[in-house]
Amino acid sequence: MQVDRARFLADLHGLRAFGACGAGVVRPAYSEADMAARGWLAQRFEAAGLRVQTDAMGNLFGLADGPSILLGSHSDSQPEGGWLDGALGVIAALEVARASREAGGPAVSVVSFQDEEGRFGVTTGSAVWSGHLALAEADKLLDHGGVSLAQARRVVAGAGAVDPSQFTGFIEMHIEQGPVLDTVGERIGVVSDIVGIRDMKITFDGQQNHAGTTPMHLRRDAFQAVAAFNRLVEERFAPVVTPATVWTIGHLSMHPNASSIVPGRAVFSMQWRDGDAERLAAMERIIRDTAQEVAKRRGLDVAFGPMSGLEPVAMDARLRGALEASAQDLVPDAWRVMPSGALHDATNVARLMPVAMLFVPSIGGISHAFEEDTAEADLITGVQVLARAVAALHAG
Amino acid sequence: MQVDRARFLADLHGLRAFGACGAGVVRPAYSEADMAARGWLAQRFEAAGLRVQTDAMGNLFGLADGPSILLGSHSDSQPEGGWLDGALGVIAALEVARASREAGGPAVSVVSFQDEEGRFGVTTGSAVWSGHLALAEADKLLDHGGVSLAQARRVVAGAGAVDPSQFTGFIEMHIEQGPVLDTVGERIGVVSDIVGIRDMKITFDGQQNHAGTTPMHLRRDAFQAVAAFNRLVEERFAPVVTPATVWTIGHLSMHPNASSIVPGRAVFSMQWRDGDAERLAAMERIIRDTAQEVAKRRGLDVAFGPMSGLEPVAMDARLRGALEASAQDLVPDAWRVMPSGALHDATNVARLMPVAMLFVPSIGGISHAFEEDTAEADLITGVQVLARAVAALHAG
Repeated sequence: MQVDRARFLADLHGLRAFGACGAGVVRPAYSEADMAARGWLAQRFEAAGLRVQTDAMGNLFGLADGPSILLGSHSDSQPEGGWLDGALGVIAALEVARASREAGGPAVSVVSFQDEEGRFGVTTGSAVWSGHLALAEADKLLDHGGVSLAQARRVVAGAGAVDPSQFTGFIEMHIEQGPVLDTVGERIGVVSDIVGIRDMKITFDGQQNHAGTTPMHLRRDAFQAVAAFNRLVEERFAPVVTPATVWTIGHLSMHPNASSIVPGRAVFSMQWRDGDAERLAAMERIIRDTAQEVAKRRGLDVAFGPMSGLEPVAMDARLRGALEASAQDLVPDAWRVMPSGALHDATNVARLMPVAMLFVPSIGGISHAFEEDTAEADLITGVQVLARAVAALHAG
Repeated sequence: MQVDRARFLADLHGLRAFGACGAGVVRPAYSEADMAARGWLAQRFEAAGLRVQTDAMGNLFGLADGPSILLGSHSDSQPEGGWLDGALGVIAALEVARASREAGGPAVSVVSFQDEEGRFGVTTGSAVWSGHLALAEADKLLDHGGVSLAQARRVVAGAGAVDPSQFTGFIEMHIEQGPVLDTVGERIGVVSDIVGIRDMKITFDGQQNHAGTTPMHLRRDAFQAVAAFNRLVEERFAPVVTPATVWTIGHLSMHPNASSIVPGRAVFSMQWRDGDAERLAAMERIIRDTAQEVAKRRGLDVAFGPMSGLEPVAMDARLRGALEASAQDLVPDAWRVMPSGALHDATNVARLMPVAMLFVPSIGGISHAFEEDTAEADLITGVQVLARAVAALHAG
């Protein structure tokens, strides 16, 4: 099958117009711009010969007849979002559906999930569709302004259930949202797995004291405990982690947080991500042991908050293999297998069917910002790799 | 002259009620509790026959007629302060002023300086009164919440200048705020000198990014820069400092401070203290060089805020001699000469007149915390030593 580059790019820019703001978009879930975009998408789906169906959450499907492969992503954006994040995967799916139909290829259905960006939760639309989150529970979720999802989704009209059993698999194309492909100059990333996440608050309680009269050797300084912990976990992670493993102390609050006082308390977030559940567990052991050791040695108390997290999801071998073969045909040796450090709708959909993902480069690794962009040649390559893989899966 | 123990303790507990929180107080400069406490103090000053005068900064004076010795400290507290810090020196001054008046002794004026605890700077009220800091410059200072001193001091009513030339000297009584007297079981410390202090905000600006998709080696993480800086300055200080030198990172704010985002910016306070001005300067060079080196190596920008600070100050020999003689009379061989590791308003006042200080023990060395306390017998001894020294200075 042959994708129509001009038609694909025209639709990508057509979607960009909804909620356009500078180079980016402001199209949060259920907003006027989001719903207008979905109305326009529904027309494009119909024009492509697909049957439009919206479910109760507002997930928008363009359905082929009979069993089909499902392609897509989401068209809602962050409060200040880039133009490609999610939108690219939806329009690429639409173009492949059209191209396949024109070429007499396999049946392709298209989806734009709702609230992937988490106005209300985390990948809320696909979480409900996959059964991971009950609609009644989701309805209670509130956005930062106190609006409930139940209220927000009243703008969804003509809802009906979409049976997942009609789909043979799901492939999501997305921008990488990180710097790897751009840095090494490669064109395509085939995702091996979506990493698992662990997130935990840790508290060191020491002794708040005067910063002038307390000798250094008598201090029980909570900031110094965090710094020592940070340094030791880095050392101890070294033999355990891979170059794809990440960990972050992104939140820290000190008490009382005054320049003249030795901090008595520090609460901080420790988040770590990896594709291997055993590695995540090994890191957790290092984190707990190190924090306890640092606390003991320095005369502080340590407490661990509840650990939240999501399990890693491996991509389906057959779908992933088709993407790899397609990438090797189209951009030989300019692609790589890589984990997805970000969460995606595919994580939820994996509960229902085989899933796979492919990435195109993000210029400068920038995402979730108006400046987000990808070279036009890379956008084209992405949709071509996707189309070729879909055709091969059908042929195989 | 004879101090009235019951009256002294009653007023000390009267002041404690303003901003009371557990055993401590929450009475930061210009807060509602602080201003209410100052209103109450003004009434107590008037009842003691003193003329109340507040200056533009909100420093509160109770003035005797003609030339007088000035006694006092401050009544603002840390965000979470002890009940005695500062408050003790103000109420001791008030009691000595009353006792001296009743005994036909020397004229004694009383002061409670504003913002000694540094909501806006370092001993801000006495710094402005002493001419060390211009009011117009002080007005630009911001607290951690972004409020300017100019805004905060609008609550000060009926301001007028207080001429320092009316005072023959200044004596500040204070809790030690450290463990020395309590540890050795002594009752009084006569201060030899107050250590110098340097305080500076440092900002690392890196790249805010996705905590899942940004590999460790491509991060420009502002928290990691602070941690690296912290470790390197500790190493580099080692050959320069003495066991009495202290340094503290007591304030740190990260942006955007979310567990899923690599921190793009960190603003933190670096404070260091020592009795030797050259050592303070050597430490400043290490701090600036290290921050620049860390920023360069990790691809961040670094910015240094204005450095506030005070030079080390020796106490006046005559005033100090009177305190030593008084201590030896009242608690023979249970007192010592010692430096002050904490900063005090006396440092600023020394620009205007002779100054001296005396300490009473801090139980467990704890201060700047709700648990701060001193045995009642030691509080009484302190005010008695102060009264006797004031009488002796007049007689001499």
